[in-house]
Amino acid sequence: MTEHSTLRRATAELFGTFWLTFGGCGAAVLSAAFPELGIGFLGVAFAFGLTVLTMAYAVGHISGGHFNPAVTLGLWSAQRCATRHVLPYIAAQVAGAILAAAALYLIASGKPGWIPNGFASNGYGELSPGKFDVGACLMIEFLATFFFLFIIIGTTSKGAAVGFAGIPIGFALVLIHLISIPVTNTSVNPARSTGPALFAGGEYLGQLWLFWLAPIAGAMVAGTFARWFYEPADIVETTVVEKVAVLPV
Amino acid sequence: MTEHSTLRRATAELFGTFWLTFGGCGAAVLSAAFPELGIGFLGVAFAFGLTVLTMAYAVGHISGGHFNPAVTLGLWSAQRCATRHVLPYIAAQVAGAILAAAALYLIASGKPGWIPNGFASNGYGELSPGKFDVGACLMIEFLATFFFLFIIIGTTSKGAAVGFAGIPIGFALVLIHLISIPVTNTSVNPARSTGPALFAGGEYLGQLWLFWLAPIAGAMVAGTFARWFYEPADIVETTVVEKVAVLPV
Amino acid sequence: MTEHSTLRRATAELFGTFWLTFGGCGAAVLSAAFPELGIGFLGVAFAFGLTVLTMAYAVGHISGGHFNPAVTLGLWSAQRCATRHVLPYIAAQVAGAILAAAALYLIASGKPGWIPNGFASNGYGELSPGKFDVGACLMIEFLATFFFLFIIIGTTSKGAAVGFAGIPIGFALVLIHLISIPVTNTSVNPARSTGPALFAGGEYLGQLWLFWLAPIAGAMVAGTFARWFYEPADIVETTVVEKVAVLPV
Amino acid sequence: MTEHSTLRRATAELFGTFWLTFGGCGAAVLSAAFPELGIGFLGVAFAFGLTVLTMAYAVGHISGGHFNPAVTLGLWSAQRCATRHVLPYIAAQVAGAILAAAALYLIASGKPGWIPNGFASNGYGELSPGKFDVGACLMIEFLATFFFLFIIIGTTSKGAAVGFAGIPIGFALVLIHLISIPVTNTSVNPARSTGPALFAGGEYLGQLWLFWLAPIAGAMVAGTFARWFYEPADIVETTVVEKVAVLPV
Repeated sequence: MTEHSTLRRATAELFGTFWLTFGGCGAAVLSAAFPELGIGFLGVAFAFGLTVLTMAYAVGHISGGHFNPAVTLGLWSAQRCATRHVLPYIAAQVAGAILAAAALYLIASGKPGWIPNGFASNGYGELSPGKFDVGACLMIEFLATFFFLFIIIGTTSKGAAVGFAGIPIGFALVLIHLISIPVTNTSVNPARSTGPALFAGGEYLGQLWLFWLAPIAGAMVAGTFARWFYEPADIVETTVVEKVAVLPV
Repeated sequence: MTEHSTLRRATAELFGTFWLTFGGCGAAVLSAAFPELGIGFLGVAFAFGLTVLTMAYAVGHISGGHFNPAVTLGLWSAQRCATRHVLPYIAAQVAGAILAAAALYLIASGKPGWIPNGFASNGYGELSPGKFDVGACLMIEFLATFFFLFIIIGTTSKGAAVGFAGIPIGFALVLIHLISIPVTNTSVNPARSTGPALFAGGEYLGQLWLFWLAPIAGAMVAGTFARWFYEPADIVETTVVEKVAVLPV
Repeated sequence: MTEHSTLRRATAELFGTFWLTFGGCGAAVLSAAFPELGIGFLGVAFAFGLTVLTMAYAVGHISGGHFNPAVTLGLWSAQRCATRHVLPYIAAQVAGAILAAAALYLIASGKPGWIPNGFASNGYGELSPGKFDVGACLMIEFLATFFFLFIIIGTTSKGAAVGFAGIPIGFALVLIHLISIPVTNTSVNPARSTGPALFAGGEYLGQLWLFWLAPIAGAMVAGTFARWFYEPADIVETTVVEKVAVLPV
Repeated sequence: MTEHSTLRRATAELFGTFWLTFGGCGAAVLSAAFPELGIGFLGVAFAFGLTVLTMAYAVGHISGGHFNPAVTLGLWSAQRCATRHVLPYIAAQVAGAILAAAALYLIASGKPGWIPNGFASNGYGELSPGKFDVGACLMIEFLATFFFLFIIIGTTSKGAAVGFAGIPIGFALVLIHLISIPVTNTSVNPARSTGPALFAGGEYLGQLWLFWLAPIAGAMVAGTFARWFYEPADIVETTVVEKVAVLPV
């Protein structure tokens, strides 16, 4: 694999996270509740997952295809992402998500009488779609991100089928949304949570902490566990790791 | 393929079956009937199938990716799973499913006023979603598991496209749910049935026998048939079989 | 590719067409109109397509994975199926579809008060779900089967990506159902039409001719066209063809 | 890769764009709003995307699988499509889309009392499904086509997983529809817009300019950007480019 410059890698992460936030939140804001023909939570779940499936194959060979600070930190804790990439990646991801939320806000405003409501933000308690309490929300975000990283690391480990990883990784995000939209509106991605919350404002900003804390904790526990679970047979040498990233192995 | 320790294999089965039960039953309990935007049986079908698709690629190269006592016994009867793996696998699968049901119960309880109802358990007669009688339920569970194993064994046989098996196997489970949720709420997996039934209790526990009996019978008939059907051109030597498992070949 | 016996090939076709009819019609009969949570035409479309995707990977390397008399005749007219296979394949396909309809009828009868209605049969005019006239029904069955064969032959031609064909072929059937269920309830497969019609009886039997005529005509025109379109660069020698079949190349 | 004649390439583009327009618009016109069981925007989104997924694998190795004037011009601006192919491809695409709209019109007319309404045409302002203003419609068509090309070029670049591109490209179109059907009824493809508009007539024809302008602008900006982004490590030499096309690399 060619060693790509930090600029190229960060650009890939910015575009990928823009697409994730624009596509997933766009489906939620514009299409989910359209009268009669709306796509519902099922359509939103596919939208989020397909942003990752498509971008993983488009730029996975450049940046690894994280699009998510929790993924970057989880892979870093699994020794699959070089330390010097962590901050540029996260900065690019958050920037991409904010730009996506801005573009989506502009487009949605083109509908006469549009009201943002939560603007596809994540929330707990009164802001949870199904009014789930903070404990349930912490737990599901932790568990879902743990398994998301477990699958990301497993499907890109030595021994896994080469070239396929983008499919299970993208569909894992579909699945996670099928389970947890009613609970937290599904984050597992602090950047995706931050973009819309800046435009929803108010209490949504006050609840952002959970959607940084729980996904990152779940991801890092998974990454640490993966070092034992996939090691020694399935993890490549640390020195090669930064070039391996998520996709393709 | 590296020979993995029993601990590592059983851990893979435990995590995989946790994910199957948590993801599939979670989608059913939390999202299926959400007002207006709920995912319905279609979303639940995708959720169950995608748990297998994702985990097959994540740990298939470690344990074979069974996540289901009927699959383990079906592969064993096809001489594709070593006898010494059978009991540890089944124990890990049942443990994973029970832990998943517990985690899901905890999360669902975080919604004020939540009532478990059947908690995504399987059932026949009065407990069948469409009130199908015990004969219909026995028959559909037997047939569906027979074909599930037929597909699992076929897609991992000599001559089948290498690396792809996780896709048809996962989508086979989607399909099986599209057919049979109204009949039994779809099991084809005794572990997945056991976890929620422990929390639903009462009559759901009393009906568990069917969801051990019919799937295992269907799986073992399929495994036995496969020994003729895929043999001799398509079955690898018995001595190698335990290392081949389900995914990848 | 190993040369498989006619018995093994026909068995593969029988199981595959059983699965196609049982799965697709089963989803339609049991799940489509379930109150509140039913899967609708979208779920039925996925069910039909996934039967082919799953079985193509399971037995495609044995029989070619036709599961449909129109596909067999279309491939034969494209010189991709040996003449001696045509009759055994079609006999096995029709037998599989009838057995599947019988099994489905038995299961559905296990629901108290169940009424077969059309039992997922195909129809035109008054028996068309949307009351489309016979001309529209002839045209859409012809066109859909033409493109189905065009895609089947194209994806398994020289130069096409190896191993992938089962995915576009299965999803082509999903797509065809998304378009045409309201018109004819979607056949493109005379065997799939014959099974349920035997149980629905009456006028459904009287309309069966269309669902043999139009799909086979569309398939054979496509096959003949493919001999020019994919020839000479993309078609293997006639003498090898019978061993190539649909999947894998 | 064999060098195919212009006739064969244009034929592939004509069939592919026929299928895209017939399948996507057909699902919208015939199935989306069917009473009770209709497939809604979610089903229409899958229909459009699956037309591309299926045809990319069927004829991608012949023409590159564009099926869309914006894709052809975007790839041309990325130096991935020879100048001499541009006009024949666009002519074939527009012809295919018009023929598809005619066939669909004929079939739909077979339903007693059928009224074309917009006949799945694209529109802004009063003709937008959600009444979005012209600015929002320009912006979403530009952005969606930009990312569509970014994904098409990325997934077929050097370093990307070989053989997989048809999957993310097809699913990218699913995703784009999940986001933007309520806004413009989703074009990102001037040919797909032109076919139905000719039959819907009136104001739909008057609005066609937007669905040529915005997708082509988005595609060509993406193509130009891709020359920097994927260059030099990921772009093959210009002289080889015309043989590479979209699928497979």
